[in-house]
Amino acid sequence: MSDQTITRVAVDIYGNTYKMAGYESAGHMRLVATMVDDKMREIQRTNPSLDTAKLAVLTAVNTMHDYLKVKEQMEQLEQELKQIKGGLNG
Amino acid sequence: MSDQTITRVAVDIYGNTYKMAGYESAGHMRLVATMVDDKMREIQRTNPSLDTAKLAVLTAVNTMHDYLKVKEQMEQLEQELKQIKGGLNG
Repeated sequence: MSDQTITRVAVDIYGNTYKMAGYESAGHMRLVATMVDDKMREIQRTNPSLDTAKLAVLTAVNTMHDYLKVKEQMEQLEQELKQIKGGLNG
Repeated sequence: MSDQTITRVAVDIYGNTYKMAGYESAGHMRLVATMVDDKMREIQRTNPSLDTAKLAVLTAVNTMHDYLKVKEQMEQLEQELKQIKGGLNG
């Protein structure tokens, strides 16, 4: 559980420094930045002619896809859990 | 469940057209594109001086954060489900 102290970190993503601020730990923010940096470099390897803006947009698209997939899986699990709990109480 | 037909769609994100290809439905790909476009415009409103590349990187960062949060929640649910199923079988 995060407390209400704002954490500020400077992170490097694809050659640029970004100042991030949030209620998460510095470690979490650095992990997020590293994952985005890794994904940008991975996409760049298969699309070497893309400029940084398009590369970053495709990274966001890729991550949004992953987000929706995991969200869908979570909703299925919630449903399963609800049914099991309903079965236990019924 | 998706079949193995490759779907190709052209989507507009923040004024640029991207050609996407994947095993997902065209609807899913358009949803992903719309969500990225929305998030870019939302971040742009609070950071009007950012160039497109930085805006897109921050959109990726924001989405990666959301992804990790949902993934964490899903892992907790999986754990809970495992314990309940263990209890039922034990």
